[in-house]
Amino acid sequence: VDTEEEQPIEGLLARRALRLRENLGAGFAPPQGQVFRLSAGVPDPATFPLEELSKAFRAVLLQEGDQALQYGGPYGYPGLRDILAKWISEREGLPLSAENLMITNGSSQALDSACFAFLNPDDLVIAENPTFPLSLRTVYAHDARVFGLSLDEDGPDVGKLEMVLKKADREGERVKLLYFTPNFQNPTGITFPLERRQAILDLASRYGCIIVEDDAYGELRYEAEAVPSFFSLAGGRGVIKLGTFSKTIGPGLRLGWVLAAPKLIQAMAALRTDMGTSPLLSHVVAAYMADGHFQQHLKDNISFYRGKRDLFLSLLAEHFEGVANWRAPEGGFFVWLELPSEADELVAEEALKEGVMVSPGFRFFSQDAKHIYLRLAFSFIHFDHMETAVARLARVARKLLSAS
Amino acid sequence: VDTEEEQPIEGLLARRALRLRENLGAGFAPPQGQVFRLSAGVPDPATFPLEELSKAFRAVLLQEGDQALQYGGPYGYPGLRDILAKWISEREGLPLSAENLMITNGSSQALDSACFAFLNPDDLVIAENPTFPLSLRTVYAHDARVFGLSLDEDGPDVGKLEMVLKKADREGERVKLLYFTPNFQNPTGITFPLERRQAILDLASRYGCIIVEDDAYGELRYEAEAVPSFFSLAGGRGVIKLGTFSKTIGPGLRLGWVLAAPKLIQAMAALRTDMGTSPLLSHVVAAYMADGHFQQHLKDNISFYRGKRDLFLSLLAEHFEGVANWRAPEGGFFVWLELPSEADELVAEEALKEGVMVSPGFRFFSQDAKHIYLRLAFSFIHFDHMETAVARLARVARKLLSAS
Repeated sequence: VDTEEEQPIEGLLARRALRLRENLGAGFAPPQGQVFRLSAGVPDPATFPLEELSKAFRAVLLQEGDQALQYGGPYGYPGLRDILAKWISEREGLPLSAENLMITNGSSQALDSACFAFLNPDDLVIAENPTFPLSLRTVYAHDARVFGLSLDEDGPDVGKLEMVLKKADREGERVKLLYFTPNFQNPTGITFPLERRQAILDLASRYGCIIVEDDAYGELRYEAEAVPSFFSLAGGRGVIKLGTFSKTIGPGLRLGWVLAAPKLIQAMAALRTDMGTSPLLSHVVAAYMADGHFQQHLKDNISFYRGKRDLFLSLLAEHFEGVANWRAPEGGFFVWLELPSEADELVAEEALKEGVMVSPGFRFFSQDAKHIYLRLAFSFIHFDHMETAVARLARVARKLLSAS
Repeated sequence: VDTEEEQPIEGLLARRALRLRENLGAGFAPPQGQVFRLSAGVPDPATFPLEELSKAFRAVLLQEGDQALQYGGPYGYPGLRDILAKWISEREGLPLSAENLMITNGSSQALDSACFAFLNPDDLVIAENPTFPLSLRTVYAHDARVFGLSLDEDGPDVGKLEMVLKKADREGERVKLLYFTPNFQNPTGITFPLERRQAILDLASRYGCIIVEDDAYGELRYEAEAVPSFFSLAGGRGVIKLGTFSKTIGPGLRLGWVLAAPKLIQAMAALRTDMGTSPLLSHVVAAYMADGHFQQHLKDNISFYRGKRDLFLSLLAEHFEGVANWRAPEGGFFVWLELPSEADELVAEEALKEGVMVSPGFRFFSQDAKHIYLRLAFSFIHFDHMETAVARLARVARKLLSAS
């Protein structure tokens, strides 16, 4: 039915829907035809553990189907929360239990849950600038405002953070949520060092803010020791940490979690209106973890993506020497390429004509957008296509930059 | 980590979270130990098609795993939307396509999507009184108000509906959403006849309201011809119809849909923040439908639950004759039992001590709660336990009602 609604839709839409249109543009262009995608933070399908998952589905359906296909409640399947708590306890160095966890539809719904439980319309959220646009979108969807905190090579500007918090406090405004991605930041690839995390945490604690720590990529570290998380440094207090199986198993599960103190978890679960994340998928991933498959798979993934990163960095060195600047990320999926002039959209457009899709950097800014960056994802593109894609992108960039 | 947050959580919570606490009480008691559950609208696990689903998972993972485990976008897997559109087109007698559908985490998330896209804080929603409390909860979670429309034996009071709409209109208030469950209404089991539907639709159209038509149980009709839906009567305009596989395959999938004009679907998808419902589950159910399994399974389910309803009704006639009143529902999972005096909580409490769980009727009212009803679900309880459960419940009710 292709009805033209008689009534104009604008009269029906919630304010948040109208504001969202103002705050964000058309969004990402969909992939068109046969292109080499360096544009999105999506995993390589070659890593998907299809056979093991298929076996886990069969085992769960035939052995636990009566429970797995029934309603499971807002917190999510206790069996998955138990095994996740055990696994995360080891990584965070804190004694955690199922009460610290709610299962969500990926970390995107985990962020949504935090916004829904804690934000009123017009509330101020402080986030990195640049940051992941779909996270900004979630904050805007809740009709909140965003202050974007500029980044240096070690992460957010702490002096600026203090200024903004002080100003809000003077004006009687409570800043409830600070949104950070401290590991392999999206899009810049930056990992905040310990001192920076501690300084941010001190400010959050002084001003009574909750830190929302998005760690979607944190498990994919290719070198150096992990830096303790905000959650771990805070002893689990006042930090909501978001996790996901999207990068380590597959986004098509839509399975993630939120880790926090029980009181915060309860507040988020109390407002949940979708009757929880699929018990079936949760049983399957619990079975997959219980058999040790996940832990081995994660090791394999780290070595696989380390190989992709290393090849990608060597190709950048070969083709972009003298044209652009970048730093090697210690993990995650992204390299943040700095161009010598404002040409992000132009390069992205021309590259697409050559069959290479990249994300122009301006899309990641909530304010004061800079046009000198490209975000390049090395995760999805096939090993065999990497050289062609980087070479084509470099050719386009050299041509446009020398012409400008 | 069992941290006592230093800061009281009340200072952090969104208004909606605080108001939700006021609007609804403690909610349903969890099942305790070995009880006969007549309390919840959950399907009988004996109907779960475990073997076929397991085969579908294997086929999808091994043949389409690269797509099924990848991100799928806010509208959901086109393959499932195509096959659903075809199937629903036949039932609704309207030419529908994938553009009329968004896949959701059950019909609960479908309702949430409608609220999120169209409601501002303090907006008025009109719903049946009584109705499904978790739907009320979703409306309250969006900080909206509810007017509960009393029901006669054919559904909502149309005169009252007109009065409320007229009053709102005089006061310059736009009522955007009317929430109805016209088939085998939850909790009363009522099916609105055609004239009632038409009268409601006329009012909705005159006042520019969207009807949210919750049809979670509509496919499970055990007798008589289906009455055309609001969606069908309206030619697909101004109606958002909610559907789900929760009652026909299994709630543990968390898979449902929202059916509406493309403009309304787009408005809801634009505000979606969870990156869509699991493509993996959607591929699997599409495969299950493409093979004709679903259609056959639905027929089997109808005959299975018809048998349960018939046995349940004959047991009520045997044990509750002269004690309570009820009407036979034409479909769905519920019988609404009317007691001769205000004893719903007392009977529910005492019955639980005897190992029978039922839902006291007051929980289904948004206002003017009546205490003379019990909602009985015949869907979940095993055939073999039905007689014992009904006999025990009747014994408890007779004892309390003769004592009062």
